[in-house]
Amino acid sequence: MKDIKTLFLEFKNTKEITLIARVRSNRQGKVVSFLVLTDGTTVKDVQVVYKSDVKGYKDAVQARVSSIVEVKGIVVLTPDKQQDFEIQAQEIILLDQSIEEYPLQKKEHSPEFLREISHLRARTKTFQSIFKIRSVTAFAIHKFFQEKNYVYINTPIITENDAEGAGEAFIVTTRQDGKYEEDFFGKKANLTVSGQLNAEAYAQAFKNVYTFGPTFRAENSNTSKHAAEFWMIEPEMAFCDLKENMQIIEDLVKYSINYVFENAREELEFCNENLEEGLIDKLNNVRNSKFVINKYEEVIKILQKAVLDGHKFEESSIEFGLDLATEHERYICEVVNKCPTFVTDYPKEIKAFYMKQNDDNRTVAATDLLVPGIGELVGGSQREDDYDKITDRCKKMGINIEELSWYNDLRKFGYYKSSGFGLGFERLIMYITGASNIRDVISFPRTPRNLLF
Amino acid sequence: MKDIKTLFLEFKNTKEITLIARVRSNRQGKVVSFLVLTDGTTVKDVQVVYKSDVKGYKDAVQARVSSIVEVKGIVVLTPDKQQDFEIQAQEIILLDQSIEEYPLQKKEHSPEFLREISHLRARTKTFQSIFKIRSVTAFAIHKFFQEKNYVYINTPIITENDAEGAGEAFIVTTRQDGKYEEDFFGKKANLTVSGQLNAEAYAQAFKNVYTFGPTFRAENSNTSKHAAEFWMIEPEMAFCDLKENMQIIEDLVKYSINYVFENAREELEFCNENLEEGLIDKLNNVRNSKFVINKYEEVIKILQKAVLDGHKFEESSIEFGLDLATEHERYICEVVNKCPTFVTDYPKEIKAFYMKQNDDNRTVAATDLLVPGIGELVGGSQREDDYDKITDRCKKMGINIEELSWYNDLRKFGYYKSSGFGLGFERLIMYITGASNIRDVISFPRTPRNLLF
Repeated sequence: MKDIKTLFLEFKNTKEITLIARVRSNRQGKVVSFLVLTDGTTVKDVQVVYKSDVKGYKDAVQARVSSIVEVKGIVVLTPDKQQDFEIQAQEIILLDQSIEEYPLQKKEHSPEFLREISHLRARTKTFQSIFKIRSVTAFAIHKFFQEKNYVYINTPIITENDAEGAGEAFIVTTRQDGKYEEDFFGKKANLTVSGQLNAEAYAQAFKNVYTFGPTFRAENSNTSKHAAEFWMIEPEMAFCDLKENMQIIEDLVKYSINYVFENAREELEFCNENLEEGLIDKLNNVRNSKFVINKYEEVIKILQKAVLDGHKFEESSIEFGLDLATEHERYICEVVNKCPTFVTDYPKEIKAFYMKQNDDNRTVAATDLLVPGIGELVGGSQREDDYDKITDRCKKMGINIEELSWYNDLRKFGYYKSSGFGLGFERLIMYITGASNIRDVISFPRTPRNLLF
Repeated sequence: MKDIKTLFLEFKNTKEITLIARVRSNRQGKVVSFLVLTDGTTVKDVQVVYKSDVKGYKDAVQARVSSIVEVKGIVVLTPDKQQDFEIQAQEIILLDQSIEEYPLQKKEHSPEFLREISHLRARTKTFQSIFKIRSVTAFAIHKFFQEKNYVYINTPIITENDAEGAGEAFIVTTRQDGKYEEDFFGKKANLTVSGQLNAEAYAQAFKNVYTFGPTFRAENSNTSKHAAEFWMIEPEMAFCDLKENMQIIEDLVKYSINYVFENAREELEFCNENLEEGLIDKLNNVRNSKFVINKYEEVIKILQKAVLDGHKFEESSIEFGLDLATEHERYICEVVNKCPTFVTDYPKEIKAFYMKQNDDNRTVAATDLLVPGIGELVGGSQREDDYDKITDRCKKMGINIEELSWYNDLRKFGYYKSSGFGLGFERLIMYITGASNIRDVISFPRTPRNLLF
């Protein structure tokens, strides 16, 4: 039996067809009636025309929105109509009738209402498009790395690492009393906030590795960009410096976008028409531009000049050491460069302990990729390869050295230039689909006081 | 700069070469010395020959196991030797010296010892092979489904579903006092034991979907097959019955094995020689056989006859209703059928509430795929599509209907034949690599009282 995606590819050479699909609408006209059907294999619907002499007519006219029908009929080309073809039904079988109270009737629904029915919202064209693009992008990322012989690593989700004690890690337990020494693992366990440290160990074994898995933050922020559970891609490359790292980031972002253009074109067009005006132009611009590289220190000067020229930032006290906010990031890539921008060589005080200290003794070999409309999309760095420097940095930052000894020890056993980055998968999907809320690119989103399904 | 995998593909047409790699061994002969190098891109090593006149000789002779060196030299074909080529060094640069106490010296190590150094063990050929095959198999699975237009769904890791209250779910919390109403989500949260229920909702939107993500069991079993954290593949297909479901399982298993043969041949050969004798023959047999289908009731009769004929099972009281143990499963596929075997139509009492009840009113449309050496590799079923029957079954099994109302409700909104299955990814990797302990196919395994790294 053909699915509707295949039918759209082959309709010109198809005469008789049998379809099983869900009813999007069922409208009775004076002479003919119309069933609009979807089977989820494409965002495009099929129109079925039926008359009162069709076999199964009595049931067909009763078929409610969301019911499942089987239709046997003839494909008729309709070049003068909105759609290229329609099906003239010979028989309609009502396989399963929906109840009348189906929540997704034809009218428009608010994103807030749709989030309350996450188990149903993927049936709307908007979410069909978003989650199809999410799936295709995930595969693009795997394909990009596998073609380059990277090894996919499933780093652990449950970890003893508490993310430098920042209090943003969920606890994993079987107890309600906090007696972790009697717990399943015999110690306190957390949900991972990053697979990077484990991936680094594996890069020393395989040269090039990547993770692609869920990460977690128990951060109590109710914004359109934060979720408690989200997926990260964290590649790590041995014998690779910051410059090569940036090239891989740029290649990956472009490859992903190209792959979506080639493999989810209809869905992308739906997003372009319904989620973000100019989306396809924006992505085309990214595909065709060479990303700009700015040193952090340059960026500070640009921002200082912008303030002098009268530009208003919420944080306008701009000097070396400032942790750039989204407003600054967006100004740089949207107003100044008008394209994705790598900012490099951040002050070491605002970056993680594992980043390689530059010779100037005040910056690190780190980079953030800033993209228009989002701000930071990727964060990466070359890793500190000197054992004394990394342990010293841990001590200065109050990090428990014993817990991380296995990680710092990697520097003792032959370690030469390792670099990597973290790409927030949902941010990338928001960027590619134009969805403005992270809750709308996650099948069943988890946010503070929100745990449904 | 070429990596070693590329060098092995192109050595016949390569003259001069520069490599950066890790030292596996460094042996001084009377006239010439030998460096054996790996860069992790293939399980095969490169041999470098150097003499006392090589540039950097003084450092080169000092290079310890696990150090990183850069070698410039000439590729020389050596068809009479064990390896096809070697590199005659012109210059050796010791980029980073390892300490003497590197734990992986050349001698053999026990799997138990290697588990204590999970951050280093992937550098051994055994674990290089296993984790490369794991990576390649993961991609094969994505490729299989994406080529068939399945949509990849990231079902939630944190869930309110407590796996039917079996007490095997880890709790996710930010508190130490069990006051979940004041917790991050405002209610008790668990780590998922399966993404199936969520995937089913998405299959109603996309027809064909699959998950591939981590799942968790707080089961206190210290066996070679159980881990607290493992990855599952859970496809779900709308408009699909049990028979079609079994065909997809068979196709997927064969596709994965074929893909490993084509894309990790050296690693598979290493496993064949070092982990399981006859591994490649076994897998070839699976690739070329048509899987057998036996009804559960037939299986019971076969087992009863085996007992009468004198076969010893630990559980020898065999009658309808028995939950087959691994010994029974292995007897069926190893002794009786000598090939992978689907067992179908299990008694409803030993299977989950969501499985479709057959007309006989005592069995369900379920299947397990049993494979030689492992037992159950896949469990699948057609889902109950009748709202009254599924809620009735929930009640009889003491399942909280309110928590699952969103799931059972799917049956109200047009629901016609949905089937799916769960494939334990680590079991598949054990099967393909011949590894006998699940701890050895997980990068950083999590088991009772074991949480390192």
